[in-house]
Amino acid sequence: MNSKFFTIESQSSGKARAGTIQTDHGAIQTPIFMPVGTVASVKTVHQRELREDIKAQIILGNTYHLYLRPTMEVISGAGGLHPFMNWDLPILTDSGGYQVFSLSASRKMSEEGVKFKSHIDGSLHFISPEKSMEIQRDIGADIFMAFDECTPYPCGYTQARESMEMTHRWLKRCIDWTKNHPERYGHKQHLFPIVQGSTYSDLRRQSAEFISEQDAVGNAIGGLSVGEPEEEMYRITNEVTDILPKEKPRYLMGVGTPWNILESIGLGVDMMDCVMPTRNARNGMIFTWNGVMNLKNEKWKNDFSALDPSGTSFVDSEYSKAYVRHLFVSKEYLGKQIASIHNLAFYLDLVRTARAHILAGDFYQWKDSVSPILRQRL
Amino acid sequence: MNSKFFTIESQSSGKARAGTIQTDHGAIQTPIFMPVGTVASVKTVHQRELREDIKAQIILGNTYHLYLRPTMEVISGAGGLHPFMNWDLPILTDSGGYQVFSLSASRKMSEEGVKFKSHIDGSLHFISPEKSMEIQRDIGADIFMAFDECTPYPCGYTQARESMEMTHRWLKRCIDWTKNHPERYGHKQHLFPIVQGSTYSDLRRQSAEFISEQDAVGNAIGGLSVGEPEEEMYRITNEVTDILPKEKPRYLMGVGTPWNILESIGLGVDMMDCVMPTRNARNGMIFTWNGVMNLKNEKWKNDFSALDPSGTSFVDSEYSKAYVRHLFVSKEYLGKQIASIHNLAFYLDLVRTARAHILAGDFYQWKDSVSPILRQRL
Repeated sequence: MNSKFFTIESQSSGKARAGTIQTDHGAIQTPIFMPVGTVASVKTVHQRELREDIKAQIILGNTYHLYLRPTMEVISGAGGLHPFMNWDLPILTDSGGYQVFSLSASRKMSEEGVKFKSHIDGSLHFISPEKSMEIQRDIGADIFMAFDECTPYPCGYTQARESMEMTHRWLKRCIDWTKNHPERYGHKQHLFPIVQGSTYSDLRRQSAEFISEQDAVGNAIGGLSVGEPEEEMYRITNEVTDILPKEKPRYLMGVGTPWNILESIGLGVDMMDCVMPTRNARNGMIFTWNGVMNLKNEKWKNDFSALDPSGTSFVDSEYSKAYVRHLFVSKEYLGKQIASIHNLAFYLDLVRTARAHILAGDFYQWKDSVSPILRQRL
Repeated sequence: MNSKFFTIESQSSGKARAGTIQTDHGAIQTPIFMPVGTVASVKTVHQRELREDIKAQIILGNTYHLYLRPTMEVISGAGGLHPFMNWDLPILTDSGGYQVFSLSASRKMSEEGVKFKSHIDGSLHFISPEKSMEIQRDIGADIFMAFDECTPYPCGYTQARESMEMTHRWLKRCIDWTKNHPERYGHKQHLFPIVQGSTYSDLRRQSAEFISEQDAVGNAIGGLSVGEPEEEMYRITNEVTDILPKEKPRYLMGVGTPWNILESIGLGVDMMDCVMPTRNARNGMIFTWNGVMNLKNEKWKNDFSALDPSGTSFVDSEYSKAYVRHLFVSKEYLGKQIASIHNLAFYLDLVRTARAHILAGDFYQWKDSVSPILRQRL
């Protein structure tokens, strides 16, 4: 079962690896970036564009958002999120925990779970580990996440330890629930547990060992990319991937910039997600192989060259820098749409290229040569 | 020259006709609806979607908006609006007059032209008939409009007459300017004069006769669809098309609902434009062969059937009513995008089908049978 879920095709001299995750909605070639489809939509992007232009292999859904809107009644009625949004490739859902803590109008946590008020209408809700499992099964995710608490940064040692311990107890309840309840919609649904422990090496080690012992088909690293310095994120990721089983995919949650992505791949990470490519796109910032562009900048005003000559999607050749700048200056929707497609296509091109270099055996040299270019401001 | 510009292929028993307008950017099969691309973008729609999914044959640009943003410096630098926005089919521009009167922060009109303050930054500008011609030539429109004054509704007789007379004097200046200045960008640019005269039959007759005498390749009817009852609009349109030369295309500006479009075609109109399909789409209203749908309506909450089984574009089959309702309720951009593509594709399907019925000889029967259905609320 486990070996079938994830196959490593190439392991470079370091920790970076290329592999394939097999789900009932298709294969995912790793390392992979997963666009975030918060409320059953990757913002401003048609599903057709996700498939054909961006070449996404798996997308994320946010349990908290989907639970509140359109509600589980509607998603269940549709036969799950795949048919509801007409997306037939893999879907991963988060547990809802992160957004309950960051978005809800108010919340009260106990060992049992979290009571919270909806940020939309103030209605009262309760999510426990069991409830989170039930919701994610009803969404129909191919990969779903354990209900955890994500500590903020910075976080005191005692708080980080107690939170991690509760996350571990909650994980046991998640595993129990999933063992005792059937899957829905006839496709396999895989639970990933999450390593916590803030920036404390001993807690992270303890958590990574505990998580590894659960023998899930894949494992996640949470509680990073929450404001800590990049070096801290890399250090913790490296310590955790040293412990998590090699033969299973590792998902680093919420990461990150293009250079974060390459660095994380170098540390043995296989899956990543982040709202950055779409959120920044809507603000006029795009990432390219030549660096970061602010599309609102005056310098593009009369630059009629292609948006990104090294880009892989139709927007890169069909629209000029001057045109897309004009759209942003004029607050035209199409600007956000173009930049979102560009950024997601770029992120997918980035991980696809990283994969090719892992297979070719020169990943680290390549990463060190392109990372400084990716970071520069154009 | 004139016969080459417009060829009538079929004239039904009534005034409706099917024809072809030939421009240097391609042919336009009439009757035609022209999507409005206000500021060099048909809102929320990619150019690729306009061509391939909506099957637009010609789009509109708004001179007032384009002049202020991105400015003529940028559009000229790009080689005109066609390359600037990467649209290589025909473009029609309005004269800027309508928006100067309706949008500018303040304005002062004289025989010479109109001084106005930009609604964007309050900067001062002056547009005269000559300036409007120059701007539209610089935009590179295939068809461009005379600079006119569009009277509001209701409008007193004396005001309507004086305004019409000035519009006629301005037309002479437009014609003089275009005769004495070369075209730009190497393609043919055609001036259409505009009939005014508010809702007064004698003024409309006078204006239609004056406009006809100018012997332009095509003629427009302005000053309608500005708040008057539908019957008034049809009455005036009918009186004007009785006078405007049969062998030249007739453009009814700013019209309208699907049933307005069919009625106008029945009165001998060949070209129409309106922001309604895109503006209403962004508010969640779509037009279909079965009637008008408010996508935000609770009744679609659990309706997982295709958005519009009789629709011609990918959004109609790829997304469900419940999904698109969810997007509108959740204020997701994609909802506006889907509804805009749907509505424009529907409008193009509407005029394409009208054309087929004109060619088949049963246009009026068909129109009378479908119009009541188009109007009903679903």
